[in-house]
Amino acid sequence: MAATNASGTTTVRYGGMHRQVLALEAVLANGQVIRTGTRAVKTSAGYDLTNLLIGSEGTLAVISELTLRLYPILDHVVAARVAFPTVQAACRAAAALISVGISVTRCELVDAATIAALRAIGSLELEQVPHLLIEFAGSQTSVADDIESMRDLVEAEGGRDVAFESDPTARARLWRARHNAAIALLALAPGSTAMTTDVAVPISELPAAIEAARVALDASGLRGGILGHVGDGSFHVMYLLAEGDSKSIAQAAALNDAVVADALARGGTCTGEHGIGFGKLGYLRREHPELVSLYSGIKSLFDPNGILNPGKLVPEPSAAAG
Amino acid sequence: MAATNASGTTTVRYGGMHRQVLALEAVLANGQVIRTGTRAVKTSAGYDLTNLLIGSEGTLAVISELTLRLYPILDHVVAARVAFPTVQAACRAAAALISVGISVTRCELVDAATIAALRAIGSLELEQVPHLLIEFAGSQTSVADDIESMRDLVEAEGGRDVAFESDPTARARLWRARHNAAIALLALAPGSTAMTTDVAVPISELPAAIEAARVALDASGLRGGILGHVGDGSFHVMYLLAEGDSKSIAQAAALNDAVVADALARGGTCTGEHGIGFGKLGYLRREHPELVSLYSGIKSLFDPNGILNPGKLVPEPSAAAG
Repeated sequence: MAATNASGTTTVRYGGMHRQVLALEAVLANGQVIRTGTRAVKTSAGYDLTNLLIGSEGTLAVISELTLRLYPILDHVVAARVAFPTVQAACRAAAALISVGISVTRCELVDAATIAALRAIGSLELEQVPHLLIEFAGSQTSVADDIESMRDLVEAEGGRDVAFESDPTARARLWRARHNAAIALLALAPGSTAMTTDVAVPISELPAAIEAARVALDASGLRGGILGHVGDGSFHVMYLLAEGDSKSIAQAAALNDAVVADALARGGTCTGEHGIGFGKLGYLRREHPELVSLYSGIKSLFDPNGILNPGKLVPEPSAAAG
Repeated sequence: MAATNASGTTTVRYGGMHRQVLALEAVLANGQVIRTGTRAVKTSAGYDLTNLLIGSEGTLAVISELTLRLYPILDHVVAARVAFPTVQAACRAAAALISVGISVTRCELVDAATIAALRAIGSLELEQVPHLLIEFAGSQTSVADDIESMRDLVEAEGGRDVAFESDPTARARLWRARHNAAIALLALAPGSTAMTTDVAVPISELPAAIEAARVALDASGLRGGILGHVGDGSFHVMYLLAEGDSKSIAQAAALNDAVVADALARGGTCTGEHGIGFGKLGYLRREHPELVSLYSGIKSLFDPNGILNPGKLVPEPSAAAG
């Protein structure tokens, strides 16, 4: 499972964990066990039920086994950290890295508000500006090569204070700015609850989308931060709600609306990673209005009695059919 | 569309063309136009209908537009050709290249019989042994690095006569051994018809699977050759049928049976790339017996009157339902 990594953050090089699933075993609503895919990397045999079940949020079957593609752990890993004057500059640099084909294995944005929160809990001492954390892996020379190209691209966007770590302990320390982000944001208002919305946009739209999210967060009256798996155009806005405060719940709903509406207007999606559940049913209908009846039909086919995670993902509880 | 390439052969690095489709437009059987996916690289919104329609062989909808992920054309491309003592040695070398993480953009096997056919039409002058054709792309230093690692791996499997080309014209000449293969095999028996079967197996099983296919081809009494996109474990067996010769048709059916049965026994699939159509319906049932009723259900949902490419992929014409 070298395609994933210790932090659970996105491995940009390989395009998302669902790409790594070759086959799966699942239990249908009627108790029947099925197997999709094979151990071959490639297949054209039958409809692609593997990808239909992945991301179905437990509404079609219970996945009981996954067969994953494996990758070697590459010889040489270097983590880099770069400070930027603005989130837009950081995102433009990330987009440039991807578009020239530099093979980064991770590329994460931590915004200025999150850096401030991390400083407040004493987790790190970085300048309170947006940072990119980037990881390179490969042979010694290819990594050196990628880093050289990266330097030019980030400097063109005003990137500075570039730090590199290759020792595993030092790399883990560098990544702490990302891993402790949620804890640090929560610590801003003890006793509050964190909510997160996630969206994804075309990479070319990312700088403007993150800037729009920043403006919406500032205007919302809520405290929070923006964290991005910017290498694949997806990012999260995390914000804090005081317990039992109905005003902050309304503010959070409005903020979520604004971030999702902006992502959809840019040709993006209402959820890059977290899924629809109950909370984004309305946005799913807005993103794919003509697909909703197909979703319902597929749900009825797999789960005619609606016993699997009912009400999630498929906008209306499916009428008994089959 | 740098993910594909002039020859249409597999771009191993990026894992198959279907991985490159971000979104699509399709026309349903009832005339309704739908759009799946978005321009974002990643989405978790709704069931994955994009991958359900890809590879559905026109049985669910008519795909009218694709939105593809683009990649930069990398600076430096080098094509390599290596001769091997046996197909097994060639496949072991290919599997080793992939498993150590060398990022080849193509890796194709041309077997000894095909080399002989190419020599017969005067297309090239290579020793009549299996060859691998491999392509590397990246920066000058990363490619040099990959080539250095490749040399050690192929030499360990008895690889020799290693030739490299970086000039585009010279690279095209080197790839001719792969591109002219079908023409050369057909020229062995003028007036005959070529049939091809394709399978894919786990990469670790590839050397034994190709050896088994070689034995089956030799035993069949048919002339033919083996060509492999060996970087992803898929390969093709091509064989010649004299027109109107019912004996050769029976021989071809038996050969196809043997190759597919071997692939399935190794945990592979009855078709890596070419699909099911009519010809592999029986093998699909053997590979995924418990999925056939789900395929029929999905077919009925999308195409209740069975007007889209009827009889293909779904074993039985679906009864009217909906």
